[in-house]
Amino acid sequence: MTRAADWFEAHRERLQAAVEACRTRGYWSPFVESPSRRLWPEGAKQRGAEAFEALLGTRIELGLPGEVGWLGSEVSPFTSEPLGVRYPKVEAHALVDAMGEAWPAWRSATVTERVGVCLEILARLAADTFLHAHATHHTAGQPFLMAFAGSGANSLDRGLEALAMAWQAMAWVPEESTFERSFGRGPQVALHKRYRLVPRGVAVVLACGTYPAWNAWPALFANLATGNPVVLKPHPDTVLPVALGVRTCREVLQQAGFDPNLVTLAVDTWEEPITQQLLAHPLVAIVDFTGGQRFGGWLEANARQLVYTETAGCNAVVLHSAHDLDAVLRAVAHSLCCFSGQMCTTAQNVWMGAEGVRVGDRMVPPDEVMQRLVAAVDAWVAEPEEALAVCGAVHSDATLSAIEEAQAAGEVLRASAPIEGAGSARTATPAVVQLPASARSVYGKEHFGPIGFVMVAASFDEALACATRDAGERGSIASYAYATDGAVIEGIEDAFALAGASVGINLVRQLPINYAAAYSDFHVTGLNPAGTASLADLAFVADRFRVVQSKVEMPPG
Amino acid sequence: MTRAADWFEAHRERLQAAVEACRTRGYWSPFVESPSRRLWPEGAKQRGAEAFEALLGTRIELGLPGEVGWLGSEVSPFTSEPLGVRYPKVEAHALVDAMGEAWPAWRSATVTERVGVCLEILARLAADTFLHAHATHHTAGQPFLMAFAGSGANSLDRGLEALAMAWQAMAWVPEESTFERSFGRGPQVALHKRYRLVPRGVAVVLACGTYPAWNAWPALFANLATGNPVVLKPHPDTVLPVALGVRTCREVLQQAGFDPNLVTLAVDTWEEPITQQLLAHPLVAIVDFTGGQRFGGWLEANARQLVYTETAGCNAVVLHSAHDLDAVLRAVAHSLCCFSGQMCTTAQNVWMGAEGVRVGDRMVPPDEVMQRLVAAVDAWVAEPEEALAVCGAVHSDATLSAIEEAQAAGEVLRASAPIEGAGSARTATPAVVQLPASARSVYGKEHFGPIGFVMVAASFDEALACATRDAGERGSIASYAYATDGAVIEGIEDAFALAGASVGINLVRQLPINYAAAYSDFHVTGLNPAGTASLADLAFVADRFRVVQSKVEMPPG
Repeated sequence: MTRAADWFEAHRERLQAAVEACRTRGYWSPFVESPSRRLWPEGAKQRGAEAFEALLGTRIELGLPGEVGWLGSEVSPFTSEPLGVRYPKVEAHALVDAMGEAWPAWRSATVTERVGVCLEILARLAADTFLHAHATHHTAGQPFLMAFAGSGANSLDRGLEALAMAWQAMAWVPEESTFERSFGRGPQVALHKRYRLVPRGVAVVLACGTYPAWNAWPALFANLATGNPVVLKPHPDTVLPVALGVRTCREVLQQAGFDPNLVTLAVDTWEEPITQQLLAHPLVAIVDFTGGQRFGGWLEANARQLVYTETAGCNAVVLHSAHDLDAVLRAVAHSLCCFSGQMCTTAQNVWMGAEGVRVGDRMVPPDEVMQRLVAAVDAWVAEPEEALAVCGAVHSDATLSAIEEAQAAGEVLRASAPIEGAGSARTATPAVVQLPASARSVYGKEHFGPIGFVMVAASFDEALACATRDAGERGSIASYAYATDGAVIEGIEDAFALAGASVGINLVRQLPINYAAAYSDFHVTGLNPAGTASLADLAFVADRFRVVQSKVEMPPG
Repeated sequence: MTRAADWFEAHRERLQAAVEACRTRGYWSPFVESPSRRLWPEGAKQRGAEAFEALLGTRIELGLPGEVGWLGSEVSPFTSEPLGVRYPKVEAHALVDAMGEAWPAWRSATVTERVGVCLEILARLAADTFLHAHATHHTAGQPFLMAFAGSGANSLDRGLEALAMAWQAMAWVPEESTFERSFGRGPQVALHKRYRLVPRGVAVVLACGTYPAWNAWPALFANLATGNPVVLKPHPDTVLPVALGVRTCREVLQQAGFDPNLVTLAVDTWEEPITQQLLAHPLVAIVDFTGGQRFGGWLEANARQLVYTETAGCNAVVLHSAHDLDAVLRAVAHSLCCFSGQMCTTAQNVWMGAEGVRVGDRMVPPDEVMQRLVAAVDAWVAEPEEALAVCGAVHSDATLSAIEEAQAAGEVLRASAPIEGAGSARTATPAVVQLPASARSVYGKEHFGPIGFVMVAASFDEALACATRDAGERGSIASYAYATDGAVIEGIEDAFALAGASVGINLVRQLPINYAAAYSDFHVTGLNPAGTASLADLAFVADRFRVVQSKVEMPPG
């Protein structure tokens, strides 16, 4: 048995449990989401911190093909200090050429071997969670605890989910069959048929700057398991978490006797982007993209490759009624604060009717709702230490400008401000801005960052209509609604379903409401402009390989 | 229980058997492929003939939305007489608008109901096989027996196969789940989640002129089962078989209490094509196309919809060695003759090495192989009656011109000729033309019709290299090879797999070699220019619907 097949056996139960979790869609995870000392081996925390420190100011040696120099200019959003980490600069064509040379052995490896390699990579990434958490914290700007869960268990779960789906899709096709029949009055004919699962080609995975692993790992494993080599192209400001993942992939591939060039890294800069050069290579057959609607939409319309995107929308919150309005507003305010509104599931557009929000027998008027929403935001960021733990850092200066623009566009109910005592960190508490329902040119698109708009429509029905109209036409990854009445809840579910958008209802105690669970939540519907790739349905995996068959007539008798 | 759900129960075993057949991929069919009297109810044959006769010179009343007149100019390739059948001429936008109005009830029907309707349609189409055979015979030009199997069991099997795959893909997603976990030190949170399978929109199914049902039914059922209304756009010269299918769909839908406009017909003419008008409607989200590479390629590159194509390639036969060369050549000759070479699985390019073909200890030189191939073709068409039964009619005048062009391009080993005594039928026996291996500009594309090219390469290896190069770069739907040696066979399988093309090896007794079996053969790989849609893998169905979810936090306790 090969080493890769051994790994498959070692991790088989985990894989089978993941398949089961995808089918039943309850809560499950084989990974450890919390850094709590008692859940980790002695010294794991310190080793992770030390490993991160040791990387600073060094070169990440990957031995990539087509290396032509070094680059890297990441700056920690928390310390505002350069990390000083340098990565190989590669020549795109040479890189992909070498991946093409690595490909044949991977194409002809068994599904078991390929999935075994993927499972082992997942296990090693999991063991390195502390290191990945530091790397993500100091590049993406996520608060440390979020970085720990987000670059660790949560992303690994999405990766394992995609792997489990790919495995199931491949398992649908038998390796061979015997086909026997007669034609007309002719003799019985027997054909021996073989079905080969053939990958498409090199996959380019374009990761985002703020939450890189969560979409990159699913794409990585969906591609790798189905036989497609993967080049990971990180966001220029968030390279380290992706580079560390690539390093682990290459180690595992090599130990399994495969060419490490099946997984490579293509780092670029704002000044010299490399993506179009990668896409121009004839071997590149798949693109997985996470990022803004502009480039995502361009890819969807123009790339000759198979394209999977997660882009963005203008996620809504629709307020109808509540048992405990402050609990609702506390949850919504948390979504605005959480990682400074830089998640794809962050709420942006808060809608209510002019009649206000019903609480018991009372209609709470819009002005009061807004006031209490602002108070709820204030509460999350009142204590600097807690504020920093919830908001983390702002990934990019562009987001600070976006906040200013948003504040200039309407009535500022709450002004954004840096978090006091955050030192050199680039921080911003949420801006809450009231807009008229007619200001669709403002709220009808994503404003990335801690920016919440509040709109009062003529009525709740009108508010719901506006929110779902925008979800369908402008995009929504996660929208939210609050209502106490069963019929209203059903109406909300139907309206969002018709708009092709998912909705979370009455999420209050579950914090953060932004949370989307692997194996349980389908992430991105593909029915609105927020992307085409759903984590992780069969469509996410089924087209990454094709079936090529041969049939051989067997001698009679 | 609704009528549709009743139908599901009535046909449930058939559906489950189809799923099982897709997984094991042996021979299976619930439909009757032969018109043999003892397999059909008393009088079925005569009723079918009479039903066809009764249609001639009449209007097919479908009650379509957007009707603006009547058209139809089909001419039987066998009698050269107009059928005189008239179809509604529709205004594309009004047609699709009405389909949009019919959609909501179908969207919200259960999967069981939708699949039940599809199963019932299949059963009724099967009951009408004699009628469909006549309609296909007198429009496509297929020989009657082929029309019977091809418009009957074989196409229904492909339809049922696609339906079974769609059902399986949808069954992967549960209707609901309960998700329970705690966050940090917080209380246990429970979410009730609902997963809705949401269709994409109206599907336009563009059928071909020579074998319309075989690709149209799979697309029809894959779309309909997943909730997408379907407009069938037949080839202007082969409308009747498609129109009859649409009529049955509409009857069944109506009986189930659904709007019949969920399945419609858009007939057009060469002078006034309707396809682009259909594609311009914003509700149209899916296109299934069978036809030439030119329009298929345009759709693949330009349509904003989800596109599935089966186009064409230059299918090869590679000759290495044989135990019985005449049996091999008889099989290859049959492929050239069968329905006058107008099948997507027809062999076109016959390759061998300069060393000839090994038979036992002897190398049969190329000239002799060619001579015996010509003799084998001659044998199939020697008797006019048998010739007509094998070749059928030529669908279009354009094919007669294509034969002349092919004969002018190389050395004519066998000249095409009309079948003697075929009366008014448009017929042509195969042309066999020798070309140098360098004449890729001629043989490196599809020549639709009874046209075979023979090329002698420097060696067998070179011949295989040329055949697989063209399969990969120019397309192949079905290629063929003959070899007696196990290692050579494996080399052939590997070479075609690397080119992304399926291959049938040593098909001799199984006649016609052109035959591709539902549930067993994956048809079109999607890895070469002959199309993107494989009948029927998971990728053919998994993206036709999306999952939209809602999650509602459950009150504590």
